[in-house]
Amino acid sequence: MKFNCSKESLMAALTIAQKAVSSKTTLTILEGILFSAADNKLLLRSTDLEIGVEVTIPAEVEKEGEIVLTASIIGELIRKMSGSDIFFESNENHQIKIECLLSNFTLKGLSSEEFPAFPEIIDDHIFSIDAGVLKELIKGTLFSVATNENIPVLTGVKIELHADDINLIALDGYRLALKSGKIKNNLTEDLSVIIPSKSLSEINKVLSNYSGDVTVKFSKNQIFFEMDNTQFTSRLLEGDFINYKQIIPVEKATQVKINRRLLLESSERAALLAREGKNNLIKMDFNQDQLILTSNADIGDVFEVIPIENSGESLKIAFNSKFLIEALRVIEGDELMIDMTTSVGPGVLLPIEGNNFIYLILPVRIAEEN
Amino acid sequence: MKFNCSKESLMAALTIAQKAVSSKTTLTILEGILFSAADNKLLLRSTDLEIGVEVTIPAEVEKEGEIVLTASIIGELIRKMSGSDIFFESNENHQIKIECLLSNFTLKGLSSEEFPAFPEIIDDHIFSIDAGVLKELIKGTLFSVATNENIPVLTGVKIELHADDINLIALDGYRLALKSGKIKNNLTEDLSVIIPSKSLSEINKVLSNYSGDVTVKFSKNQIFFEMDNTQFTSRLLEGDFINYKQIIPVEKATQVKINRRLLLESSERAALLAREGKNNLIKMDFNQDQLILTSNADIGDVFEVIPIENSGESLKIAFNSKFLIEALRVIEGDELMIDMTTSVGPGVLLPIEGNNFIYLILPVRIAEEN
Repeated sequence: MKFNCSKESLMAALTIAQKAVSSKTTLTILEGILFSAADNKLLLRSTDLEIGVEVTIPAEVEKEGEIVLTASIIGELIRKMSGSDIFFESNENHQIKIECLLSNFTLKGLSSEEFPAFPEIIDDHIFSIDAGVLKELIKGTLFSVATNENIPVLTGVKIELHADDINLIALDGYRLALKSGKIKNNLTEDLSVIIPSKSLSEINKVLSNYSGDVTVKFSKNQIFFEMDNTQFTSRLLEGDFINYKQIIPVEKATQVKINRRLLLESSERAALLAREGKNNLIKMDFNQDQLILTSNADIGDVFEVIPIENSGESLKIAFNSKFLIEALRVIEGDELMIDMTTSVGPGVLLPIEGNNFIYLILPVRIAEEN
Repeated sequence: MKFNCSKESLMAALTIAQKAVSSKTTLTILEGILFSAADNKLLLRSTDLEIGVEVTIPAEVEKEGEIVLTASIIGELIRKMSGSDIFFESNENHQIKIECLLSNFTLKGLSSEEFPAFPEIIDDHIFSIDAGVLKELIKGTLFSVATNENIPVLTGVKIELHADDINLIALDGYRLALKSGKIKNNLTEDLSVIIPSKSLSEINKVLSNYSGDVTVKFSKNQIFFEMDNTQFTSRLLEGDFINYKQIIPVEKATQVKINRRLLLESSERAALLAREGKNNLIKMDFNQDQLILTSNADIGDVFEVIPIENSGESLKIAFNSKFLIEALRVIEGDELMIDMTTSVGPGVLLPIEGNNFIYLILPVRIAEEN
């Protein structure tokens, strides 16, 4: 193998390829990135067997070939190179010479023979989505997935497709986040898949510097995200997702309009004390025109007042501050609505404008004090 | 105690006071910051018994008093307040009410009775120094202090004063850094103290947002840094510092002029492999017009060429890459001089301009290969 390529495009490609490299693996080969040079292209591939990435960049290829290089070493090495072009030449013993200006490196690589192939793309179903929309969908739901694996499907995010509508749904038994958006084509059948949260988190990082369309292809077990010069794949989670629609309450006895920033800041202050006490509890007393937010801990008490518009009944309720704060950080707009029924029924956070986000949070039962 | 003050100035003062709070202590009171209100001033004090800080800010004091508040809680609480003025009122049970806009906190504090007093300022010796100069002196030496405590004085930095000259010296048995500057007055006697590296690191942080003069007062056991509204104190290390002057070689058989950035970048690349091998070794072959820098490890080899001007003899020598890189990061100027005698004698790094920095590094003995 003998080729040269630009330092800048190689660095960008390595940054993406490193997302799928196993951080802890007993298979040495999975600590590496496959370099494959052919047809004046350099292809980088990495996988941790759950997700996989392929990135292609232009290269001047004098002699085709493949080699696997340790991701951490090659990444840092290329980053620290001073020149704009980098020259690679490997021999039959899986050694590769890397030259850039007056720097000469010889690295030991591994044979590409045992490196896992990229899964065959089965495009049973295809849709296209704007990268910005996809990032918003992920941001609005990923924080709500279950962190324990008691119910494996809940460690993933459900993607639902209907015509040109897309919903992402995550829930962990205490709260549920549902974020909606539009895809760029119209599907003739309703579809749904469950994608592991870790995969969604990595695709989100790959998307961070990308604006444009993403083509999504999926079959029963595998999903593919195609953008520009990058292919990202993940296995899907199998199993039945909880029928979440029946959890979302229809009634609302208490309906409150409140300033998002004021509620977020008050909750964050209250959480400072709440975390010293038990279960991060924030007590909320919704009157007709103000919310009184309190929290008690050994170290002290907090009492906050926030003006509200309550078009329903007064209500006392308590929430876990973490679940409240995480949703308030992603909901859009200066104000939001909180719909509630009773002190033991869920609270529902909704944006004032549009209906592209629903966040449901179960209250913590507290003993009535008066 | 009853007072109010600006959120901004209190936050700035707390940031400084937190520098001296014990991160691990068995004395609960030392996890706190003393708040002392009197004469329309709020004084904050903290100490870990080795260093201490006092910061004073303007306050409207309605009723004098003192209380000790847990540093981590009060710091985060004030940071998260939304208003510009904060109102404090404490009662006899060491509880304090903190109000800001519509937020009301009640925190449990501790009695100030057991809080350590700030050491009495004994100004046996006084000098004044520009904060920028002091920061440069610290930056040029602090990284070279010993990290193990076999010889306790070497965990400190020596400060030497002579007329209006100030030298800071740090050494760890493998390398020595000496940085020189000027103070603002002329001392009539030669003086020296050894300050613990941790104290110097903390005063450096306190100085980060300060430009102006620093008044330094010291006695045999204690040193005080006074700036603006802040007093910083540290105990001094006792014992005899190594007579470092006799270590600095006078002869130089090999004298090399080299570009600082090229040598730094080459060393950093070589270090990537060196750290995979033993003792971070970089081998350097100084010819008449080029330096050949090599490093070998199981994972691969590196071979770098850097143009030099050698006004002495050719020399092969090897250094620990860490010790070389750390000095190249702080030495000033585009080029530097490296003076050497033999492959087992120290290398001396010097700036081209001025004589305000000397860095001495012991070589690693290597078997001669040819």
